Amino acid sequence: MNYQRVYNFSAGPAMMPEAVLEEIRGEMMNYRDTGMCVMEMSHRSKAFIQIAQQAEADLRELMGIPDNYKVLFIQGGGTLQFSMVPMNLMKNGRAGYFETGAWSEKAIAEAKKCGQVDLLASSRDAGFTYIPDCSKLNIPQDCDYLYLCQNETINGVTWNTLPDAQGHVLVSDQSSMFLSRPCRVTDFGLIWAGVQKNVGPAGMTIVILREDLLRGRLDPQIPVYLDYQAHADQESMYNTPNCWAIYCCGKVFQHLKKMGGLCEMERRNQEKAKVLYDFLDQSSLFHGTARQQDRSLMNVCFRADSDERDTQVVSQAKAQGFDNLKGHRSIGGLRASIYNAMPKEGVEALVDFLRQFEKEA
Amino acid sequence: MNYQRVYNFSAGPAMMPEAVLEEIRGEMMNYRDTGMCVMEMSHRSKAFIQIAQQAEADLRELMGIPDNYKVLFIQGGGTLQFSMVPMNLMKNGRAGYFETGAWSEKAIAEAKKCGQVDLLASSRDAGFTYIPDCSKLNIPQDCDYLYLCQNETINGVTWNTLPDAQGHVLVSDQSSMFLSRPCRVTDFGLIWAGVQKNVGPAGMTIVILREDLLRGRLDPQIPVYLDYQAHADQESMYNTPNCWAIYCCGKVFQHLKKMGGLCEMERRNQEKAKVLYDFLDQSSLFHGTARQQDRSLMNVCFRADSDERDTQVVSQAKAQGFDNLKGHRSIGGLRASIYNAMPKEGVEALVDFLRQFEKEA
Repeated sequence: MNYQRVYNFSAGPAMMPEAVLEEIRGEMMNYRDTGMCVMEMSHRSKAFIQIAQQAEADLRELMGIPDNYKVLFIQGGGTLQFSMVPMNLMKNGRAGYFETGAWSEKAIAEAKKCGQVDLLASSRDAGFTYIPDCSKLNIPQDCDYLYLCQNETINGVTWNTLPDAQGHVLVSDQSSMFLSRPCRVTDFGLIWAGVQKNVGPAGMTIVILREDLLRGRLDPQIPVYLDYQAHADQESMYNTPNCWAIYCCGKVFQHLKKMGGLCEMERRNQEKAKVLYDFLDQSSLFHGTARQQDRSLMNVCFRADSDERDTQVVSQAKAQGFDNLKGHRSIGGLRASIYNAMPKEGVEALVDFLRQFEKEA
Repeated sequence: MNYQRVYNFSAGPAMMPEAVLEEIRGEMMNYRDTGMCVMEMSHRSKAFIQIAQQAEADLRELMGIPDNYKVLFIQGGGTLQFSMVPMNLMKNGRAGYFETGAWSEKAIAEAKKCGQVDLLASSRDAGFTYIPDCSKLNIPQDCDYLYLCQNETINGVTWNTLPDAQGHVLVSDQSSMFLSRPCRVTDFGLIWAGVQKNVGPAGMTIVILREDLLRGRLDPQIPVYLDYQAHADQESMYNTPNCWAIYCCGKVFQHLKKMGGLCEMERRNQEKAKVLYDFLDQSSLFHGTARQQDRSLMNVCFRADSDERDTQVVSQAKAQGFDNLKGHRSIGGLRASIYNAMPKEGVEALVDFLRQFEKEA
């Protein structure tokens, strides 16, 4: 079949592997002789439970998730996780947060509704363009957990070294770098990720949670949907989950395994990002905006020498098949999100375009 | 392309129109020259916003939703709506509920976390097999709203006549009969429906809400995701919505318009249900379990003369391409869910099968 696909640099929802989309298309009218599409399957049917269990098993294998961690599929996006984390993990009513951009800011706002938030470090002073120094953290003893957003999409900064949690439980929002590189799960008490950036379609978060952090059902006044225990007790089927997202993410997990797993993804992602950052570092027109040692491999933020020029880049790029290069509306500029599913050829083609643009500017 | 589809009688997720699935398949690799699948689109892109706006416009047209009602697309399923309704609509901290089955029971349990629940009527005494008499309701003046589940899937009963709300705001869970027949939206202050039964893929609820019931942002202690106002202010894009479900539901709305709208759906649904109920009413082996005048057009619950026979029916039916005839695990028996997307031929074929089974029994 013929179709023309663009290089889509959206920060999310974002590109999915073409091979995965083709497989999904092939199963659309009749999934493996069930006589139905996965969208039509009862979530309690054998066929669907097999899909969900396989997806979880493949994710466990990819990330090396130990048996004492639960894997949950929950709706409501990052916004609901901003609330669920403090509602479920605050025992002393106190937690430490790292403020490194818009996503950690939002998490802090929701956590403050549940208890005391100690701001452990912030990069607000320079517009969140770097990861703050965490060598001398002052962490109150009774903090229930420490929370960070491991990759901030808007300014394109990432935690390359985790802060010393001093024995506290570490919670990470990995939405925009999930499965982009190996992850030592035991470094964390809880990892969550919205899947719409680096994995599959919007509408689901994956929560990886150390079992001992579950302490039975929450305060009975709390809505049952917001209780990790309720989801864990029913293996993410307390109510009907986003079955389609589980299916699509499962396909991507299989695809990543075939590609060689997370070490291979890291190698590819480093290689891809280097193509773009190397260009930016020698360009006389463009420059990267994040501090060099904190640069994200996923979201490359940059600018030309003026806002007008940035706008020209976006529109000329779009005409040539490079979509969604506009920076986040809150800060402007340019941004190329190059998640797992962006092929190296896409980044190389973008650099060719930018080089040509610079020449003609 | 060749494919063998089964008649899927699942209570949800459930059948979708074959023509819709084919259209989705056709757009999988390249949606209308965007060069990407809808799953890959930024929810803020022009292409996706157009999809979402068209879906809302088509739903408004189908149901005749007046301008003073908001249409919201929210994740978290019915379970989250059980909580969001009382959190958002209780001003006096008091509401009246009708208890007609498992889904209204669950709604009541969540509402009790937010305030006082007055049980206005119940059919618990006969295992929720009928809709209670509501001719002499005793409704406390200060109830903020009255809540009912308009079609209960487990026992297959439906409200054919709405109770007299005596001037109170009526809230309806229409999940399992949404778009199956015309609906006078102005009878309700709020209608919500999980889409995975009668419309599209699981992972989204549609909330139709009279604007004057929004009273600004809620108590700032409440998680922002649970605030209808937050969703309404951003036209369901406070955070990334379930874009895929919006797209698929939009396709179904278009399909229903082409079919002739909700009057035509009601005609077809009545015709379909009659085929099955007429058979049950004359059968010497099978009998319907819901009270005749309260029978659901969507979920036809019935039994043979023993549990063993029911089990035989389920397995023999499956072998012949009739899937998911098992009654809900909480009550057993048999159930054929015959939502909009089930063709009349499917019901006729099922009746032929049941007739043959009866003959051989």
